[in-house]
Amino acid sequence: MLGKLIGPEIRELIETRNLGAIRSLLVGMPAADTGEIITELPEEVQAIVFRLLPQAHATEVLEYLGPEEQERIIRSLGNEEAAGILNDMSSDDRTALLEELPPAVVTQLLTLLSPKEQQIARTLLGYPEGSVGRLMTTEFLMVRPEWTIGECLDFIRANGNDSETLNFIYVTDASNHLIDDVHIREFLLRPLNTQVADIHDNRFIALRVADTAETALSLFKKYDRNTLPVVDSSDTLLGIVTVDDILDVQEEVTTEEIQKIGGMEALDTPYMETPLLQMIRKRAVWLIILFVGEMFTATAMGFFEKELEKAVVLSLFIPLIISSGGNSGSQASTLIIRALAVGEITLGDWWRIMAKEIAAGFALGCILGSIGFTRIVVWSQFSDTYGPHYMLIAAAVSVAIVFVVLWGSLSGSMLPLLLRRIGLDPATSSAPFVATLVDVTGLIIYFSAAVLILRGTVM
Amino acid sequence: MLGKLIGPEIRELIETRNLGAIRSLLVGMPAADTGEIITELPEEVQAIVFRLLPQAHATEVLEYLGPEEQERIIRSLGNEEAAGILNDMSSDDRTALLEELPPAVVTQLLTLLSPKEQQIARTLLGYPEGSVGRLMTTEFLMVRPEWTIGECLDFIRANGNDSETLNFIYVTDASNHLIDDVHIREFLLRPLNTQVADIHDNRFIALRVADTAETALSLFKKYDRNTLPVVDSSDTLLGIVTVDDILDVQEEVTTEEIQKIGGMEALDTPYMETPLLQMIRKRAVWLIILFVGEMFTATAMGFFEKELEKAVVLSLFIPLIISSGGNSGSQASTLIIRALAVGEITLGDWWRIMAKEIAAGFALGCILGSIGFTRIVVWSQFSDTYGPHYMLIAAAVSVAIVFVVLWGSLSGSMLPLLLRRIGLDPATSSAPFVATLVDVTGLIIYFSAAVLILRGTVM
Repeated sequence: MLGKLIGPEIRELIETRNLGAIRSLLVGMPAADTGEIITELPEEVQAIVFRLLPQAHATEVLEYLGPEEQERIIRSLGNEEAAGILNDMSSDDRTALLEELPPAVVTQLLTLLSPKEQQIARTLLGYPEGSVGRLMTTEFLMVRPEWTIGECLDFIRANGNDSETLNFIYVTDASNHLIDDVHIREFLLRPLNTQVADIHDNRFIALRVADTAETALSLFKKYDRNTLPVVDSSDTLLGIVTVDDILDVQEEVTTEEIQKIGGMEALDTPYMETPLLQMIRKRAVWLIILFVGEMFTATAMGFFEKELEKAVVLSLFIPLIISSGGNSGSQASTLIIRALAVGEITLGDWWRIMAKEIAAGFALGCILGSIGFTRIVVWSQFSDTYGPHYMLIAAAVSVAIVFVVLWGSLSGSMLPLLLRRIGLDPATSSAPFVATLVDVTGLIIYFSAAVLILRGTVM
Repeated sequence: MLGKLIGPEIRELIETRNLGAIRSLLVGMPAADTGEIITELPEEVQAIVFRLLPQAHATEVLEYLGPEEQERIIRSLGNEEAAGILNDMSSDDRTALLEELPPAVVTQLLTLLSPKEQQIARTLLGYPEGSVGRLMTTEFLMVRPEWTIGECLDFIRANGNDSETLNFIYVTDASNHLIDDVHIREFLLRPLNTQVADIHDNRFIALRVADTAETALSLFKKYDRNTLPVVDSSDTLLGIVTVDDILDVQEEVTTEEIQKIGGMEALDTPYMETPLLQMIRKRAVWLIILFVGEMFTATAMGFFEKELEKAVVLSLFIPLIISSGGNSGSQASTLIIRALAVGEITLGDWWRIMAKEIAAGFALGCILGSIGFTRIVVWSQFSDTYGPHYMLIAAAVSVAIVFVVLWGSLSGSMLPLLLRRIGLDPATSSAPFVATLVDVTGLIIYFSAAVLILRGTVM
């Protein structure tokens, strides 16, 4: 957006080699905006522009770039430049950058770090992917319970420069066990001679380093925090996680949820960056499962082949009927999957949900059924596609629609609950999955209704 | 979770009238946990337990309850108790509570507020629903550029008690125009005699009071902020928005997106709280649109009725073929809708997406087509359902599958882009919507392939 407005101007400055002007233009804006502008420049220019920035600004800007741009730019830098930036980056953003790069590049980049930063980077990369350890930063401040507020403020003034956030100050004992988290408010609002021990209440919320990012997300939401400390199993303080990283986690978690609802395995990477073969594999798995499931429709219809031969007209409504069941099932399963994901409903609500879906499904079925009935009857006034018994056909079709829609709503809503109950991910009962299930049963409902209503007349 | 563990213990304490023990149990835990426990108590006990809490804790706990519990508890309180809590609540949480209540209750509750709080509450409720004004809190600190850091810290110490967050301190001129936002870090790290004017750079990111919550969400994400100031059109500072409210906005926005992908209008309320009639209406609209669209399948098949009469066997594969197209279309549209929503792709990428989907769709079509071919051929060794020309039928079906899957992937991916291009919400091209479109065209593809391959033999 911004980049599209300023981009041409910068390209002109590059062409005229006016690098000084570019530099002052970019340094004067927030790092997020500089990052956006660089992202929207042509690839071959990105590194040139990036290298104009002073190191502190460059480090910040790099943190706002996407993994592709980060890799390209880091590889284009000389060792000294790369070392400066990597040593300077906050440790969580550096982990995020390194985990995207090929192992060979990581090994090489790690050697550029100072021994201290190298050890931090290796430790953080040692935590499993998707764990809190991979999200945390090691830049935070610890104070001791015996200090006064005044001493703490002096300590913060002297040492707080690298700290990722000063929202919470952590109180630890001599062996770095977390005793309490104290909001910066307390330090600012109390008289300077208050002792830290007088403020703290030994109650704190902390993440475990091996917790999943999803656990962290739910704790951040529950306690409305901006920052949470991370401890190991013996309560030693290891780092902190800030909420901006959690917003990204929430976005990723939701993307995976949506992709599963869409009937596929979740991609691990953004759409454009996912290699074609990997994307085909992720999509093929579910398409094949659904295809094999859907083969039962051919089997089910095989049982009714004799009836079909007598009344080919019945086949005209097959797509209409099974898709109505699929659509109502897709609505119900989507509603329930999402309501489970955000915690609006629990398994214990199943019978209230079932009652609601039976009522809604029946009402929706009657609405669609009467539209279908009207359509066939009206159509028959102008055409004889449906033959002389069109009223009976209309009746068979609309009765089938009522029950198929009811069945779609019911199974669409119960399936996610069932999956959760047996310990599987409810999002697996995607719209296509429910549709497939409803297709097979829907055909059986349709032909049974048709046989009951049309026997002796049409067939 | 927690409530389920402690709930029985509390119920026992209530039965034995040991209210003192309940009180000390609940006061000793974070407000979020107390809130969770109260939520999981039986309705008739919730207010009893709530009224045991001291006012400051009660106010905090109320902010963590759901709208239903909040309403029940507020209505159960005496006027004096309710007034105490409502005056004490942070203004953003109070707005969120009031906007859920019936207008008559709101009018009555507003009269309980002090004149100052009443004016704040009325102003905030005056902003349109879904705007930044409804999310903001008016508790924040302003300092003047001519003050020193030391003076500011004294000012914060004296006045910061009500402030929602002390992450950023806002610098304003004498008529409250926002001049700058300064991170608390700067106040803590600089020498005490530094003047504020020496720190600030006149660059700040601010929200407009009429901005939508979605705009706020994207600015929070872009700039990785915990707090953003809110100004009116003349840059007067009105309030602040904190990121915890934005996490909730993100969750709501995503829920709406998911519900649209599921093929329905977004519900405005949680599933369980949505009245049955309203839910039927929200679902019926799209079901009817899809149903009417799907009627064209009957029309399309009408054109091939003669062919169907000659080869009823063709109808057996109709559900299999159209659902394959629908499933691949659902995958493609879900991927593209989500990638658009999180900004991974833009309209300008359309031809790269098209190329990718043609390749993926063709590959997936070939995979499913060959499974289908094998299935028919193998089956024919054991049964004569498909007659003597089963090889030709297998060929017709599998060729149709290749093209239907290709067409599903292509239209599923292009439709969201097209909708975005003409200014509509891409999520409208839900899985069911794409499936309906692909069903009609899929039938035409199938029968065309069948006529080409089977003419002169089967029909």
